[in-house]
Amino acid sequence: MSDYRILKTDPNSQARLGRLETSHGEIATPAFMPVGTGGTVKGLTPQQLRAAGADVLLANTYHLMLRPGVEVVEALGGLHRLMSWEGPILTDSGGYQVFSLSQLVTINDSGVEFASHVDGSRIWLDAEKATDIQNRLGSDIAMCLDQCTSFGVEAEELKSAVDRTIRWAKRCKQAHSNPNQHLFAVVQGGVDAEMRSYCAKKLVELDFDGYALGGLGIGEGHEKMTATVRQSTALLPEERPRYLMGVGTPTDIIAAVGAGIDMFDCVLPTRNGRNAFAFTRNGPLRLRNSVHIDSTEPVEQGCDCYCCRHFSRGAIRHFFNTAEMLGPILLSIHNVRFYQRLMATIREKIGSGEFYGWASEELENHY
Amino acid sequence: MSDYRILKTDPNSQARLGRLETSHGEIATPAFMPVGTGGTVKGLTPQQLRAAGADVLLANTYHLMLRPGVEVVEALGGLHRLMSWEGPILTDSGGYQVFSLSQLVTINDSGVEFASHVDGSRIWLDAEKATDIQNRLGSDIAMCLDQCTSFGVEAEELKSAVDRTIRWAKRCKQAHSNPNQHLFAVVQGGVDAEMRSYCAKKLVELDFDGYALGGLGIGEGHEKMTATVRQSTALLPEERPRYLMGVGTPTDIIAAVGAGIDMFDCVLPTRNGRNAFAFTRNGPLRLRNSVHIDSTEPVEQGCDCYCCRHFSRGAIRHFFNTAEMLGPILLSIHNVRFYQRLMATIREKIGSGEFYGWASEELENHY
Repeated sequence: MSDYRILKTDPNSQARLGRLETSHGEIATPAFMPVGTGGTVKGLTPQQLRAAGADVLLANTYHLMLRPGVEVVEALGGLHRLMSWEGPILTDSGGYQVFSLSQLVTINDSGVEFASHVDGSRIWLDAEKATDIQNRLGSDIAMCLDQCTSFGVEAEELKSAVDRTIRWAKRCKQAHSNPNQHLFAVVQGGVDAEMRSYCAKKLVELDFDGYALGGLGIGEGHEKMTATVRQSTALLPEERPRYLMGVGTPTDIIAAVGAGIDMFDCVLPTRNGRNAFAFTRNGPLRLRNSVHIDSTEPVEQGCDCYCCRHFSRGAIRHFFNTAEMLGPILLSIHNVRFYQRLMATIREKIGSGEFYGWASEELENHY
Repeated sequence: MSDYRILKTDPNSQARLGRLETSHGEIATPAFMPVGTGGTVKGLTPQQLRAAGADVLLANTYHLMLRPGVEVVEALGGLHRLMSWEGPILTDSGGYQVFSLSQLVTINDSGVEFASHVDGSRIWLDAEKATDIQNRLGSDIAMCLDQCTSFGVEAEELKSAVDRTIRWAKRCKQAHSNPNQHLFAVVQGGVDAEMRSYCAKKLVELDFDGYALGGLGIGEGHEKMTATVRQSTALLPEERPRYLMGVGTPTDIIAAVGAGIDMFDCVLPTRNGRNAFAFTRNGPLRLRNSVHIDSTEPVEQGCDCYCCRHFSRGAIRHFFNTAEMLGPILLSIHNVRFYQRLMATIREKIGSGEFYGWASEELENHY
């Protein structure tokens, strides 16, 4: 199953305008997915997310399998019901969190045993189980289990992780049985061009509904990341969506769209929002700063979000200063809207053939 | 200025149906005011408050004078702008918090000096200053500075506090200069019928736009409170609104309406909501309880709030279990809506002449 249509390609870059059909509606690409880790995008109601322009969310399989557990999600009618989100949901495989959040116990070709970061209980995860869980969660896009490596790892370890990622992807595909769910594979290989090519080639042979790039945005820097993305997308089939996992800043996103990426997720808009950091067209604002104390300006002039239409910088600074929940809520609303406005502009610029010039100017101004 | 109209009185109790006009719109009474301590009802946007049916909010002068300070509120365009609330706002005088939250330094007939609970700085508050601050905040209803006493205080201390409350009310009225702002006096006197009568009589002679009962709901119990309320309202002019400060549970409110009260405020719906406690027609629910783990039921069957229309008890339990902000947000929405539905029912029952029978049944069932 592949329900991805390319509506337009940019003449001067690899950027593509498209639509990905899912069981819960279409995703306009390039798309940004707010992160709803454990079944909620922190601090926001689905109504506020929809109003901010999000049409697809990401949820973390690792967190959901620990709490409330897949059986509970099933009993509650599936992930969409739990979250009260009627649009598309992408679930990751859990692999990244196993490697970053939990204490690893064993890893071998069969799978991985880890100690839960919640209560230390030992849990087994393998390709078949990761596929089965995502299937039962009922997400619209599932990800293959992959082995993530840290930035700058030795060549031998990198090769071993890439080989395992390929073998696990094959097993995920064999285990995958839900015709209403897309299955994407994850290309690993660090910033090693040869490893990326090798991994991409092998995964493409297995024929997935889409391809993600994993293991980027973890310290390699903007230039290396963009170069790796560009080199990797060139090896992926045109007609399948491409997803850059966990990235990133507005600048990263603009550059990666130019390098051929269609989908993104990142905690930045909500995590930064909770920490009083606002994204704006004119650069970041830190709302705890006392310079805003009596400012009647909105966070971003011209922004159409609920926060900017109704609250002054001074009010928001006061809410953060007094630890009121409304501060994090309002800046999360604004930042998610900022990201969605960015994606809408990107799609508009690709549609009108102006993406390359616009993106070059943006990257020059902000990087 | 008194813009209170009684539309209907209950034939079998002291309950009244009315409308209080303010510079920011009408308040349908009996009314419940959610508490927006420092300029925000914790966890809720004004949009969500409006959707929950609130038409008037309370804000705390004590908190606002400490942070962000009255000058900052003025610079930000006043309290309505700070809060982004276009409806009526009532501010208390700050007195209650001075006596309950801060460390008292001096109290005498002139006023009170206290140490801020935020940074220990010494602050002076007196009748004129409390009036001036509320005037500058721009609330629609201001309260006179009063001296609160603890439950069970000695007769001598009670008398001294009542006398001071009367003297301060007189000074507040003299200092009050805003024709767009109602000024209410506060009747004190504990549960001592003689003191309450004395205080009410003296305050009524001074002629205020409305009268509040203070110093109740602080440990005297439901019966004593209701008796004191009934005895006090009998001494207040029919044609002025009556406000029972800081009260209370649904049962307290039903009983107090029957005893002639028109306005209420209380932190219960939001504070309890943040602590996973939901009010329902069938009694309270504690949403952390594992009995809800796989419940697909809404918090309250038949409730029309955003929480009940979109989320299961199981989902909400999961959000509390994982410390997600959405849990407190959703239950605050539900509880505020529950209180507003209660007030709407109360108004409807007074309107149809059925209040007494309905209230008697409710109090029997829930008390």
